[in-house]
Amino acid sequence: MADDIPQSHPRYRSLLARRLLTEAAADGLLAESALIAHGRGEAFDYLLGERTIASARQAINESAARLLTAESPVLSVNGNTVALAADQMLSCAAVLDCPIEVNIYYRTPERMIALLKRLGERRQAVTQSRPPDGWSEGDDAWKAAVNAVPILGENADGRIPGLEGPRAACSSDGIIQADVVFVPLEDGDRCEALIAAGKQVIVVDLNPLSRTAHTATVTIVDELTRVLEELLPLLLAGGNSPDKDWNNDAILRDAVDEIRSGTV
Amino acid sequence: MADDIPQSHPRYRSLLARRLLTEAAADGLLAESALIAHGRGEAFDYLLGERTIASARQAINESAARLLTAESPVLSVNGNTVALAADQMLSCAAVLDCPIEVNIYYRTPERMIALLKRLGERRQAVTQSRPPDGWSEGDDAWKAAVNAVPILGENADGRIPGLEGPRAACSSDGIIQADVVFVPLEDGDRCEALIAAGKQVIVVDLNPLSRTAHTATVTIVDELTRVLEELLPLLLAGGNSPDKDWNNDAILRDAVDEIRSGTV
Repeated sequence: MADDIPQSHPRYRSLLARRLLTEAAADGLLAESALIAHGRGEAFDYLLGERTIASARQAINESAARLLTAESPVLSVNGNTVALAADQMLSCAAVLDCPIEVNIYYRTPERMIALLKRLGERRQAVTQSRPPDGWSEGDDAWKAAVNAVPILGENADGRIPGLEGPRAACSSDGIIQADVVFVPLEDGDRCEALIAAGKQVIVVDLNPLSRTAHTATVTIVDELTRVLEELLPLLLAGGNSPDKDWNNDAILRDAVDEIRSGTV
Repeated sequence: MADDIPQSHPRYRSLLARRLLTEAAADGLLAESALIAHGRGEAFDYLLGERTIASARQAINESAARLLTAESPVLSVNGNTVALAADQMLSCAAVLDCPIEVNIYYRTPERMIALLKRLGERRQAVTQSRPPDGWSEGDDAWKAAVNAVPILGENADGRIPGLEGPRAACSSDGIIQADVVFVPLEDGDRCEALIAAGKQVIVVDLNPLSRTAHTATVTIVDELTRVLEELLPLLLAGGNSPDKDWNNDAILRDAVDEIRSGTV
């Protein structure tokens, strides 16, 4: 997959992400508008300098602390997240010992089946790979932890209150019972509904002006795969406590300032 | 087509554009990365306030003057341009009495055929529609003018110097012999090659930081369909002369300033 993009290419990550998404679209994993949404993210990332800015690093630290101290965390994934970062999300879930829920805005049986199948395949691949740096319990324990991750979404026996139609569907063992939901690339309506349901919502959104960014409890203004490269070691290291005075607005203001200064 | 989007919707134009592009993708008109490119444009348009800024209006005026005084202008179209604005481009070509050339970066026989077929269909539709405001020669003359537009691209008997492979292919009756090329949504490499070949190149690019934007003779930092709504009446009115001291860098600086102030 994407073997013909040389890793030395200065835009390797960006080209790889495009390739993964266009392949996922061809495989039926994505909604029609998913590639357009990715392009919007690319533009904001370009303006941010395609790097993890300091305020995003703060937000990643805070997210790690909240996920580690949650009673019942869940990682919610959509098509773009599975296409770009299935392995990383599975690794994070294994470390947190929490479920992954496939939860998509444009829910169709075909896409749900395709995404659940892809996650199952990637789970196999992750169990075969080396445990991440910082995992101290050995290869067998890693394999067991990855295999123990519940992959939810098929049985949509719950509904997110305040939403209508298929996009309200979710799992009672996942989002419904969670206190902290890590949901990269979420849309504004659903983010608002999850907050209204009393949950802490952690989002990854490259647009610091979006409704999602302004609604979430913790907003990481950064590109998803960079975020997960930072997040996984933090989850493995453990230890931090959530900041009771977390100021998400300050994080968003800083990201806007970075975009402004970056375009000079 | 897209009949279910109410025209009163505050984001009607943006939703219509998305619809037209996702339908064009399904119809095989677009390269894989076309939807991602559109998304990047959407983000920049969002930051510009989704309006034609004053410096873009200047660039549209300058483009009209250069197209009207060109010896041999050509309008070069790719998949996104055909999907979004085939009718408008055909109308501009009819007024200018110049060819349209289908010229695409990822050239395949299938996409060329699909795009030429689509343009032929849209040409039929435009001949059946009312002439644009400002057309003074009557309905029959309008029909004749639209039918007279050469639609080039199938016979790629020329090559843009300095480019390799299928993306160098072009028409000797179109781009090769043109002094002014209006080429919305062009990529950086090809824009550079056209400039190096001694042509005036007019581009439409929502990203004022792109290589294309910085390479072109005249850069219109605006959304394509808004541009063409402004351009067509100017072409019909005629009269302006090109500005010999045209300062494209100043236009780009102004667009960057607008993005910066828009993100406050």
